[in-house]
Amino acid sequence: MNGAYLDNASATPVRKEVLDVMLPYFNEHFANPSNVYDIGSEIKQVVEEQRAKVANLINAKPEEIIFTSSGAEANNMAIKGVAFARQKKGKHIIVSSIEHHSVLNSVRFLERLDFEVTFLPVDEHGLIDPARLSKAIRPETILVSIMHANNEIGTIEPISELAANCKENGIIFHTDGVASVGNTQVDVNELNVDLLSLSGPALGAPKGIGALFFNKGVRLMPLIHGGIQENGRRAGTENVPGIVGLGTAAELVSRDLPGTENHCRKLRNRLVNGILDRVEKVTYTGHPDKRLPGHASFCFEAIEGEALIFMLAQAGIYTNTGSACASKALKTSPVLGAIGIRADLAQGSTVFTINGNNTEKEIDYVLEKLPPIVDRLRELSPIWGKEIPEYEKDVCAH
Amino acid sequence: MNGAYLDNASATPVRKEVLDVMLPYFNEHFANPSNVYDIGSEIKQVVEEQRAKVANLINAKPEEIIFTSSGAEANNMAIKGVAFARQKKGKHIIVSSIEHHSVLNSVRFLERLDFEVTFLPVDEHGLIDPARLSKAIRPETILVSIMHANNEIGTIEPISELAANCKENGIIFHTDGVASVGNTQVDVNELNVDLLSLSGPALGAPKGIGALFFNKGVRLMPLIHGGIQENGRRAGTENVPGIVGLGTAAELVSRDLPGTENHCRKLRNRLVNGILDRVEKVTYTGHPDKRLPGHASFCFEAIEGEALIFMLAQAGIYTNTGSACASKALKTSPVLGAIGIRADLAQGSTVFTINGNNTEKEIDYVLEKLPPIVDRLRELSPIWGKEIPEYEKDVCAH
Repeated sequence: MNGAYLDNASATPVRKEVLDVMLPYFNEHFANPSNVYDIGSEIKQVVEEQRAKVANLINAKPEEIIFTSSGAEANNMAIKGVAFARQKKGKHIIVSSIEHHSVLNSVRFLERLDFEVTFLPVDEHGLIDPARLSKAIRPETILVSIMHANNEIGTIEPISELAANCKENGIIFHTDGVASVGNTQVDVNELNVDLLSLSGPALGAPKGIGALFFNKGVRLMPLIHGGIQENGRRAGTENVPGIVGLGTAAELVSRDLPGTENHCRKLRNRLVNGILDRVEKVTYTGHPDKRLPGHASFCFEAIEGEALIFMLAQAGIYTNTGSACASKALKTSPVLGAIGIRADLAQGSTVFTINGNNTEKEIDYVLEKLPPIVDRLRELSPIWGKEIPEYEKDVCAH
Repeated sequence: MNGAYLDNASATPVRKEVLDVMLPYFNEHFANPSNVYDIGSEIKQVVEEQRAKVANLINAKPEEIIFTSSGAEANNMAIKGVAFARQKKGKHIIVSSIEHHSVLNSVRFLERLDFEVTFLPVDEHGLIDPARLSKAIRPETILVSIMHANNEIGTIEPISELAANCKENGIIFHTDGVASVGNTQVDVNELNVDLLSLSGPALGAPKGIGALFFNKGVRLMPLIHGGIQENGRRAGTENVPGIVGLGTAAELVSRDLPGTENHCRKLRNRLVNGILDRVEKVTYTGHPDKRLPGHASFCFEAIEGEALIFMLAQAGIYTNTGSACASKALKTSPVLGAIGIRADLAQGSTVFTINGNNTEKEIDYVLEKLPPIVDRLRELSPIWGKEIPEYEKDVCAH
């Protein structure tokens, strides 16, 4: 059957080369790396080799990588870890208003513990203005967290400029790299960040593994307290097969990335141009150029995104309304609200995420199937072709 | 080559039947369970089936199970989750002095946030006295956490009695079941607990998966904030292969457990009697009867536990000095200090953990190899056969 899996930001199959390397670590080389005897220290060495591979992918040092169970855990660990370690210095944190839930809900938790949080607005493309960040900085600001690339609209933020601003003021800078690492070149030195979160599945590693890069000078309270794993920074027996998966995947991504980026950009452009040519009244959201190479996001007028997702899935085409983590919350996206998309239009949000496994044939299949599905849904829509009343045009609330 | 793997509490190979069931979830059925389309909701259903299997193992309801990345995460989530959710009611917490590091270091973190913690002493077998717990309870006590079974000395605590005490006073009771679930029958209703942590590897599931049981009435702040996974209680894309591994392993353990317990108890008794018969000046630590069926722990006089572990490993026998999580910290064990073992004796701590895969032949191999190794180490020991000076006899410090 024809089809196209274009929801790679939600989930990707583990790469076969990765799974093959992981397998012996489930029941052959199964020892606990914390143990001092031979079969334990052999595994410890394997874990350290993977740490070096992950570090290499983002131009970090091996000792600057902490393995976590997900990108969400890495974000929580960065935000809460810095907040709890530095709270005597100040209790003010700045984040963008389009951060992932794992950042937004971490700072909301801290607000309940008397931290103060500033949510920076973005422009119509989702960009943060460095001057605006400068103005938001106070003497008691201890942490700024601004994502590298946005998962819903693909926009890439000017991280190195934003971070430079903070470094001058002794403020720790964290960036959520979950949407970017694996999809575009990421260099923590170029970005000039103190902390960066990444997720395994985005690289072709399995679910259940992620990592946090931290600059060695950063004081960080553990999120998971306990034993001395990860140099005392993250307790719990190491997920050795997952770590081997992440290291192996990082190595493959390091090797393939420039080619993959070009491939994804080409397919993405074909998809975007094709949709804009064939479908009327559709808004391409996010920044036109400063965006992830494999990311295309649209709002289709007079359509419920969820209905479109379902209809496309029936044709074997998999896409998303926005963030998988919130897709069952059935609210309009705060990200689309932040870039000024009208509430009625935001309902029709659809996100396509392309990776190295996708083909031109899949894109052409989408371009064949999507326009008639949009037409059919619009025929059924009570608002298609009608003037939208003013009160319905409100930008969707945060 | 002959050998005996008797460090099952540190790590176990993933059961073959478990790995076989997990495999398709890495790259065939790889979708994100949060997605609404067909291949997403199919995975969601698979996850819910595993939740029911884990619940069944401990006589809980499926909706009372939260998947985590480890037992350590479950312990952190329980302790901090209750503390942050109930801090307006009071800031006093009671734990035993022999808890796992993931509990002890979680409450020490809370002490820094102005919580007060009482560490309950234990008797010479490691048992908590329920009357002592009653006396420690204050009006502002919000949480008691006492482990079900201790990982270093195998002692099983009188949890139902201890918990009954707390329930009467509206205090939440958590138990760390990482050492017990999988090794002995655990029923959360019989235990009468509000929260119980468990770890996947103890059941033959892979590293990187664990779970927290919580009584539905318990208010719990998430440890990992973000999306709405796990009913809003634990963010991050679900580790689907790990969850399938845990569910499958739980099902097998439910089926096999009474037999496995008998098998382990028989081998353990053979090992204990054999060692006590063949080796002089050795202390069997923990409770003689109220202990995990597959658990045997000793302190060998005038021997460094670590040296013994190394020598045994050279003969293909794998054991532990205590907790793998702390084995590189090179301190004497606080647990052994708490049961009044002299500091010099605590150095010679060695823990054997037996599971369903072990055989009588392995035990007999240990009984053949261990005594001459102990003799050789004692010959090299500067203190063997000498009177220990009084100041060296101090109980090891907490």
